[in-house]
Amino acid sequence: MDRVFNFASGPAMLPQQVLDKAKNELLNYQNTGMSVMEIPHNSPKFEKIITSLEKSVRKLLEIPKNYKVLFLQGGATTQYAAIPLNLLSDRKCADYIITGQRSRNAYLEAKKYGDIVIAASSGGAGPVYNTIPETTKANFRPDADYVYMCYTNSICGTKFNYVPDTGNIPLVADMTGFLFSEPIDVSKFGLIFASAEANFGIAGVTLVIVRDDLIGRVDPLTPSMLNYKLLADNRSMYNTPPVFNIYMMKLMVDWLISIGGLVELKRRNEHKASIIYDELDRSQYYTTPVDNKCRSMMVVRFCIGDAELDEKFIKEAEERGLTNLRADKNIGGMRAAIFNSMPLAGIEKLRDFMKEFAEENTRFGHIEMEDMGFGI
Amino acid sequence: MDRVFNFASGPAMLPQQVLDKAKNELLNYQNTGMSVMEIPHNSPKFEKIITSLEKSVRKLLEIPKNYKVLFLQGGATTQYAAIPLNLLSDRKCADYIITGQRSRNAYLEAKKYGDIVIAASSGGAGPVYNTIPETTKANFRPDADYVYMCYTNSICGTKFNYVPDTGNIPLVADMTGFLFSEPIDVSKFGLIFASAEANFGIAGVTLVIVRDDLIGRVDPLTPSMLNYKLLADNRSMYNTPPVFNIYMMKLMVDWLISIGGLVELKRRNEHKASIIYDELDRSQYYTTPVDNKCRSMMVVRFCIGDAELDEKFIKEAEERGLTNLRADKNIGGMRAAIFNSMPLAGIEKLRDFMKEFAEENTRFGHIEMEDMGFGI
Repeated sequence: MDRVFNFASGPAMLPQQVLDKAKNELLNYQNTGMSVMEIPHNSPKFEKIITSLEKSVRKLLEIPKNYKVLFLQGGATTQYAAIPLNLLSDRKCADYIITGQRSRNAYLEAKKYGDIVIAASSGGAGPVYNTIPETTKANFRPDADYVYMCYTNSICGTKFNYVPDTGNIPLVADMTGFLFSEPIDVSKFGLIFASAEANFGIAGVTLVIVRDDLIGRVDPLTPSMLNYKLLADNRSMYNTPPVFNIYMMKLMVDWLISIGGLVELKRRNEHKASIIYDELDRSQYYTTPVDNKCRSMMVVRFCIGDAELDEKFIKEAEERGLTNLRADKNIGGMRAAIFNSMPLAGIEKLRDFMKEFAEENTRFGHIEMEDMGFGI
Repeated sequence: MDRVFNFASGPAMLPQQVLDKAKNELLNYQNTGMSVMEIPHNSPKFEKIITSLEKSVRKLLEIPKNYKVLFLQGGATTQYAAIPLNLLSDRKCADYIITGQRSRNAYLEAKKYGDIVIAASSGGAGPVYNTIPETTKANFRPDADYVYMCYTNSICGTKFNYVPDTGNIPLVADMTGFLFSEPIDVSKFGLIFASAEANFGIAGVTLVIVRDDLIGRVDPLTPSMLNYKLLADNRSMYNTPPVFNIYMMKLMVDWLISIGGLVELKRRNEHKASIIYDELDRSQYYTTPVDNKCRSMMVVRFCIGDAELDEKFIKEAEERGLTNLRADKNIGGMRAAIFNSMPLAGIEKLRDFMKEFAEENTRFGHIEMEDMGFGI
């Protein structure tokens, strides 16, 4: 089967060039006679991979010198505990902005360790978060150890359209599914973390960028593998790191640099997203429930408004090599994750299929025919 | 360059067949048009991988039904904390057997969480542990929540030649570098864990096998990602699992089954190890400091007894495609890790080189010539 266009939100699509390179050197990495999976982590070869990766990450994101860059295991979920364990002071108080299930889970995890409050939320009773709340400094307790946010919501398709002003309080951001999609000002954050599998690698490694002055005051009961100071002092090799996953991140970051870096990626990503959003805005057939002013460029959510037609859309898209368009089961409808690796050709094919499907499956006609017992 | 024989202790060598399979389907996993790295973890394709892997692991190790099988991130080091956090009762007391740096680190980590004592040790002041202590039930506190051991020492080359009798106290074993090398009686243990990168996969995933009755009493401050109950209830998919690493474990476990399972592996591994040990015992040239009655079949440590000749041996072996034979820098000499994936051809080539080197580099001659200023 030919390569499909994979709209899954994570693990997500990877660029063909990156996969080709991984395949070509899978049994013989740089003429070592070994696979990169077989290379000892404490060897010069791996040392070179992780050093070069850190250098590229620092360059791409323009990370100031007073930040540590860590490559960790356990996914973003492990960071939900590591953040309060490392960043809470004796006051043990932090403020969370809730904009989806991820930030909600992070909040619930942090509550184990301190006086954690919801400073703002865009959620109601259910799992749907279609907007981003506005905040000012007044939303946050002046003595909070940090303010926590999740930059984008990959389930619902929202994105912060501003960086919250927290004054002197360190801002902590989960940027999974967003980091490396456009330039950011790292200096506005105390800590940024993101799992690699959406935009810059594969599942099994999480990037943590943390300001020097925020590490070292760790709770004494913190497991070693969640202790940022210890992990930083050992350059992310306190134990055997996930060698292959870090190597794949390096291939991805090299690829991001090769196509022009984050300014170019922003241009591409905005262009790609606009093609789908324009179709949604133009069409009377599809709707998106997401607040217009905080639409994600990485994840576009839409639906026809008829569960049966949504299913038909997903099924027929699948048959055309447009795969994994089904949204989270608690949300319904469609969700197209269009991360860095999704080529323009995939976007155009999806847009064309959206048009074609709308022409061939009028909502009204569908309901009529079904009611008449003809089926579809 | 041709494939080398890689004697590293982890990440370690993988079978050519496994790497070939991974390479062949790297861009198109089972005709999905996707790499396995791109497959969503909550899709039927990945569900099939992890379900089939668990089934194979249970079959190979003959795991009783009242044990959970978990595939976790964070390496064995994360388990050093997870074990006391999950297994300590209100008494919070556990006994550790120290037979190397790994069990020492596990002990130090556990001390954060309870009244942890050293029940027995084979170590002195330094980093070298050349034997395994004998223990009886009398070594352990009758009210200990568990007894902890590390089955083999991959740095020093030792192996427990018995399973400690702990009576009713659950026995916890780090089997990294040992598990899947021969049959074991799982029912003698309360918990077994092992990182995959030595014998059954690549770095980035750790197998945990734990008896049902030992999970659920977790310390409330435990990070979710270390909570066995939560991880078991979510079938190791509480968050995005390391999809590719789990897939590689499946390829490895399939390969272990294909060559005949653990009885056959034991035969092969004993045969391979005996070839090196026989050469060590026969030769006056090489010595091994490891106590004869607790030699590891997985890691063979030896030296010439002259640091300069040891270096020369390592260098010349490397030139012949016998790579990563240098022992830990704190130990010195040579260390050949000969896990499941090391073919007999690699063992025979090492043995032949040992003979050749011994003939061409007499210890006495070397010293004389150097003393005379000729160099070598």
